[in-house]
Amino acid sequence: MAGFKHLVIVKFKEDVVVEDILKGMQKLVSEIDAVKSFEWGQDIEGEEMLGQGFTHAFLMTFEDKQGYTAFVGHPCHVEFSTTFSTAIDKIVLLDFPSVVVKAAT
Amino acid sequence: MAGFKHLVIVKFKEDVVVEDILKGMQKLVSEIDAVKSFEWGQDIEGEEMLGQGFTHAFLMTFEDKQGYTAFVGHPCHVEFSTTFSTAIDKIVLLDFPSVVVKAAT
Repeated sequence: MAGFKHLVIVKFKEDVVVEDILKGMQKLVSEIDAVKSFEWGQDIEGEEMLGQGFTHAFLMTFEDKQGYTAFVGHPCHVEFSTTFSTAIDKIVLLDFPSVVVKAAT
Repeated sequence: MAGFKHLVIVKFKEDVVVEDILKGMQKLVSEIDAVKSFEWGQDIEGEEMLGQGFTHAFLMTFEDKQGYTAFVGHPCHVEFSTTFSTAIDKIVLLDFPSVVVKAAT
């Protein structure tokens, strides 16, 4: 789906148990209706020069920017953000209305 | 859809006409069947600290890693990559099998 996207790419700190973070995210997206879809992945290509140390991508989709704003302000997100921020070494966030050029059939 | 994802986030050089790059990408994904879906967006939040200067995200989906490998080796991609690489100031690539936690309904 198109909609409004919240893209997070990170490098976790070395001692972080990524599974625990993922469990927290799964809970988060199940609790907040505004999150219409959520998928993630761990880079397997390991092109270190072009990955710049980032290893994981998280992509959430909202119906529109209002949905995203509701998510950001939701108490569960505020609480999770505190946990998340202590786990990361590097992060890039991009938030954008998605433009679909070729749609999945 | 889940599948295998190719995520590219970039900061373009200042004199680059992004529309021209986008036209090239549209042509590329229309020419290569292995690309099952393609969407992109320009960050509108402008949280400079957390965007780290990156402004655009491009996300392609393939059926599987084989589809991605076919795309990378396709002559049209090889040609486009040369153009693309001259246009960018910064780039991060992440390639991963997508794990869908919450599916769009």
